[in-house]
Amino acid sequence: MTRLIEELRKLPGIGTKSAQRLAFHVLRSSPDDAEQLASAIRTLKASLRLCSICNNITDVDPCSYCTSPARDQHLVCVVEEPTNIATIEKTRSYAGVYHVLHGTLSPIGGVGPEQLRIANLLTRLPEIDELILATSPTTEGEATARYLVEEVHRVEPRVRVTRIATGVPAGSDIEYADEVTMTRALEGRREL
Amino acid sequence: MTRLIEELRKLPGIGTKSAQRLAFHVLRSSPDDAEQLASAIRTLKASLRLCSICNNITDVDPCSYCTSPARDQHLVCVVEEPTNIATIEKTRSYAGVYHVLHGTLSPIGGVGPEQLRIANLLTRLPEIDELILATSPTTEGEATARYLVEEVHRVEPRVRVTRIATGVPAGSDIEYADEVTMTRALEGRREL
Repeated sequence: MTRLIEELRKLPGIGTKSAQRLAFHVLRSSPDDAEQLASAIRTLKASLRLCSICNNITDVDPCSYCTSPARDQHLVCVVEEPTNIATIEKTRSYAGVYHVLHGTLSPIGGVGPEQLRIANLLTRLPEIDELILATSPTTEGEATARYLVEEVHRVEPRVRVTRIATGVPAGSDIEYADEVTMTRALEGRREL
Repeated sequence: MTRLIEELRKLPGIGTKSAQRLAFHVLRSSPDDAEQLASAIRTLKASLRLCSICNNITDVDPCSYCTSPARDQHLVCVVEEPTNIATIEKTRSYAGVYHVLHGTLSPIGGVGPEQLRIANLLTRLPEIDELILATSPTTEGEATARYLVEEVHRVEPRVRVTRIATGVPAGSDIEYADEVTMTRALEGRREL
């Protein structure tokens, strides 16, 4: 029982109290239910892996994006985390493929280029026409984007490297835009 | 006393209770203080007007922006309200002048082009090289921008008309971007 509570406590958002409550629930549940939970955890770890092309979480390798004939395999959107793919898919306006870095550069956090999945991005470059850098417009995301554009142009200058727009969010009043966002919105203005 | 309470109640954010409290404060204050408040209100209305060039609120006509030799008088930023000028000034990255519409097009609210200060924008066009449309990326702000670009190009096709960028705000994770904002951030991507 103590071991299960200890294991549950390692999960994000689960403290000692919650871990105890969950452990007692397992204790009270039928042996079948407990076995199904245990096997679901085991199967997940056994079946899920990272796509060898784009590093997305997948149960088939290469993942469904990287093998889809409906998608433009020469247009690649670089994101920080696998969850960011969902954010971009929700727009229903992107028909390219992805590359997941699994993090951002962070000198303070001790994350250098070798800790990110950049090596297998560089090997993809001969197949790529445009690389969209969709890391967040945070300090780390911007630093990562700046590093990537240099690396990509050093290895394959032919590749067009673009950056998603920073600006006032849709539906929002410019009154609420901070200085940096407003500066970027002005700099990034487009001809109509 | 009742008349003062009634007048105070017309101010935004002042209800009956607040109006009574303010009126009693005036009643208790010295005749000098009361006279100074009354004269400040009178002077404000007498001295403030709209700039005849850009419609900004000003005490001298034309306003200090429209007569500044340090500002590019051929670059004009179109905003909805006088308060938006402060938002753009805070960026310290804009050195052009302004044009205040005093509202946005709103068919539901009964605001058509003739209710906005568009006529004296069109007469400014011969002096303008670039017009930045900085209305908010809301439904009304976008409709106003679309209307303006057509009108401006009809009257003076030479003028470059640009729109501020819609996108993910600076410092924000793309995880929190809604679909419309993310779509616009992708569409508005710029080459690095």
